[in-house]
Amino acid sequence: MADLQQTFEQLCNHVRETAKLENISSLLGWDERVMLPERGGEYRADQITLLAGIIHDRNTDPQLGVWLEELSDSPLTEEPHSETEATIRRLRSDYLKQVKLPKRLVEEFSHARVIGQQTWVKARAENNFGAFEPILDKIVSLSRETAEAIGYDGEQYDALLDFYEPEAKTDQVREVLETLKDQLVPLVAEIKESGRRPNMEIMKRDYPLAAQEQIGKMAAAKIGFDFTAGRLDVTHHPFCSTSGPHDCRITTRYDENFFPSAFFSTLHEAGHGMYEQGLNESWFGLPPGTSASLGVHESQSRLWENIVGRSYAFWSHFYPEAKKLFPAALGDVPMSDFHFAINEVSPSLIRVEADEATYNLHIIIRFELEQALLSGDLQVKDLPGAWNEKYTQQMGITPPTDADGCLQDVHWSAGLIGYFPTYSLGNIYSAQLMEQAHEDLGDLEGMFAAGEFGTLLTWLRENVHQPGQRFPGSQLVEDVCGDPIDSAPLIRYLRAKLGPLYGIQH
Amino acid sequence: MADLQQTFEQLCNHVRETAKLENISSLLGWDERVMLPERGGEYRADQITLLAGIIHDRNTDPQLGVWLEELSDSPLTEEPHSETEATIRRLRSDYLKQVKLPKRLVEEFSHARVIGQQTWVKARAENNFGAFEPILDKIVSLSRETAEAIGYDGEQYDALLDFYEPEAKTDQVREVLETLKDQLVPLVAEIKESGRRPNMEIMKRDYPLAAQEQIGKMAAAKIGFDFTAGRLDVTHHPFCSTSGPHDCRITTRYDENFFPSAFFSTLHEAGHGMYEQGLNESWFGLPPGTSASLGVHESQSRLWENIVGRSYAFWSHFYPEAKKLFPAALGDVPMSDFHFAINEVSPSLIRVEADEATYNLHIIIRFELEQALLSGDLQVKDLPGAWNEKYTQQMGITPPTDADGCLQDVHWSAGLIGYFPTYSLGNIYSAQLMEQAHEDLGDLEGMFAAGEFGTLLTWLRENVHQPGQRFPGSQLVEDVCGDPIDSAPLIRYLRAKLGPLYGIQH
Repeated sequence: MADLQQTFEQLCNHVRETAKLENISSLLGWDERVMLPERGGEYRADQITLLAGIIHDRNTDPQLGVWLEELSDSPLTEEPHSETEATIRRLRSDYLKQVKLPKRLVEEFSHARVIGQQTWVKARAENNFGAFEPILDKIVSLSRETAEAIGYDGEQYDALLDFYEPEAKTDQVREVLETLKDQLVPLVAEIKESGRRPNMEIMKRDYPLAAQEQIGKMAAAKIGFDFTAGRLDVTHHPFCSTSGPHDCRITTRYDENFFPSAFFSTLHEAGHGMYEQGLNESWFGLPPGTSASLGVHESQSRLWENIVGRSYAFWSHFYPEAKKLFPAALGDVPMSDFHFAINEVSPSLIRVEADEATYNLHIIIRFELEQALLSGDLQVKDLPGAWNEKYTQQMGITPPTDADGCLQDVHWSAGLIGYFPTYSLGNIYSAQLMEQAHEDLGDLEGMFAAGEFGTLLTWLRENVHQPGQRFPGSQLVEDVCGDPIDSAPLIRYLRAKLGPLYGIQH
Repeated sequence: MADLQQTFEQLCNHVRETAKLENISSLLGWDERVMLPERGGEYRADQITLLAGIIHDRNTDPQLGVWLEELSDSPLTEEPHSETEATIRRLRSDYLKQVKLPKRLVEEFSHARVIGQQTWVKARAENNFGAFEPILDKIVSLSRETAEAIGYDGEQYDALLDFYEPEAKTDQVREVLETLKDQLVPLVAEIKESGRRPNMEIMKRDYPLAAQEQIGKMAAAKIGFDFTAGRLDVTHHPFCSTSGPHDCRITTRYDENFFPSAFFSTLHEAGHGMYEQGLNESWFGLPPGTSASLGVHESQSRLWENIVGRSYAFWSHFYPEAKKLFPAALGDVPMSDFHFAINEVSPSLIRVEADEATYNLHIIIRFELEQALLSGDLQVKDLPGAWNEKYTQQMGITPPTDADGCLQDVHWSAGLIGYFPTYSLGNIYSAQLMEQAHEDLGDLEGMFAAGEFGTLLTWLRENVHQPGQRFPGSQLVEDVCGDPIDSAPLIRYLRAKLGPLYGIQH
């Protein structure tokens, strides 16, 4: 047992060292997007590639395999979901995956990702799907090859999904998203038919940058983002990046003529950041100190951005402050108009600009299409047609160009097939968690209206953040909420908020 | 020959990869001092230490030794000071040095540096030399041990000096600095006796931060710092840091009630940065693409900060702009008063605040003391007394506390013994180079007054930056100027500028 304990320590030390390098790589990426001088890009890419090689060597070090063999099924794994058991289980799963991938495939995929993104940027700007088609074709077949190399019990897509949502199964996810779609489509239709619309002109007035910065930082700090262990900076595409146990950086972008852009992306990224800041520090770099899955991560960002941040209660607290900071834009605007405007529902073409009700329809379209691409039911050359057909059918609008259609997202060009559904899982989880939080904590709206967010955050810390990867994402949520994954709370939440605004059933 | 060429390529590839890691480490250091959240320090130190270990392993890789043995004295080294010969010569010299240092000594020294700096910060704040004495004693003996391990032909100090000023010899440096001292002491005395003083109140007026930022960036860009391959940020202790061939970052600090602080530190760091930006890009990470020495580096920063930046001609161009940006502070100030104030000479206790005439006296005191510490002629416990005696004798003022005396600089606590003289070598080189530039380029003052700095920069690029480490620093300067290292040009320059201001001989 003492020997096993020593082996476990060696294993952990090795992985913690690797995590230091991974966090250095994160910092290089953050710096690239936030700080890097114009001409510094090429060398930065070389630096990141070099680190990736060193990290890959460490992750596939045969010594890791020896330690993990010794530890798995040993007395140290007897207590399921303990920190120790989870560490061994998760590291073994990652290791076995890594060593199954031939180096040739890893390198070829890595290269295809770089070319993929470069080609995509150009193809999108020129609205030229034909230019993107060959490399996307390559990425799809490399993804297929990856799935085959790793192996799967059920569907091929499982092997890819597992990278982002460990232990999730395609058929279950499909069932959940189908049910969600069946409920969202009528909701969106009712809203459309209601004929009610918020006054969106309010959002497009002059919102000076400095005041936006002030209210964004204030709100992020107020909900619990710790600025002594994090930063907020400006970038083109908002993101959250962790470089150490007390170094989590979020970014946003400012549009002086559209208030929601910076404010809600700040809350969104702060939600991600607060999850990172709430992880178990003593296990930093190891599974118990790592986020459970992308779905759970997204549940935290969407919870703070939407369920909290677009609530009437939240603005009962912040609106007087907003009026002070933006007297010209909001001086004459009643809070109810403001609240309606930040909750506008309107089918649109672009996912990243979508409202809460239509957002998941965008995701479902992508999820359906990428399964078809992977299985070969859909040829890459037929993607634009299939995309437009689905948008016409499910969203009621047809993309006028591929740039506004199947070329809009970076994911596929970056080799991320199997990633999209985690966005919807996150939305579903967020509503499930919030229903349970209400049950456990009582009048959350009263707290928000009083500017008190600590009670909710403490509950999330304890129930969602601290467990890290001890449980798979869906099990974590099920353990907290008592029910398996279920889209009903999300629909209940949307109808409860949007019903009164649009005068529809709730 | 083809085989040799191939070995040379392998060698270069290995070293370029190591340079990528070193530049990552630089970025981590820059980020630590400019961006890192308050609580991120501990993990960052761990990350830097981990990289240092990986870099050390690469630098002492026996394969490097095999390649270098094969290449040294081979036909590839036949052309002295060619890129190839210099690469082999410099890398071999570094390698032989690295492998001579026992790992135990490297680790012990590395640890002593961390403790040294932590102890120093506290000891300085508490004005408690006694608390610093034991670790300084340790650092001195580890320095001695390092010198012995590396070996030397002449003096023990040579082995340390060589880290910072390759191939320089202590006896030559001593002779040059003695001569310099003999000329500076009477110059400073004459200035004191002249009774003339600039009106320093001018410098202490309100200089709003935004306007300081604007004039600093404008001036840095105008003299040639390339902002598409660099940045300017804010920090406590200004520095210049390179993270890639097109990524050189400089920093400054703003004092709203003292104009010279930010402006001249910006020019100083821009001078360092322009040297880095002027290096031969195709040899980046290898000796021909690396700065020649710390002395040559400092010659570039001081040349732009002082010889250019404090000249009447420079301000003939910038003063109208300064008046526009600081109407309240400078509206009623004639340029001659401003120019006199930025060239004040006044013996003081603190090196980093010293003027051009007294600066080198500070350095000479440190150079003399650290030689005595290393040789054992001076015991660490007697340092405060020896320090105060020298300040009283050579500067005419006695430090009231050790915090303002021998505890003021970070260098010794960081294990940097042998580093100080490079500051004075830089000042001497800068004046030699500038005399030669005048000879080669003619009316530089006329150009500066017209805002034209490109002619001088092009000359520096060609003569000083592009050669990299093909020549040792002093030889580089000698080749450009025709004379060996000589303090006379610095004295001529100082007397030419200060003479008219103070009404003394020039």
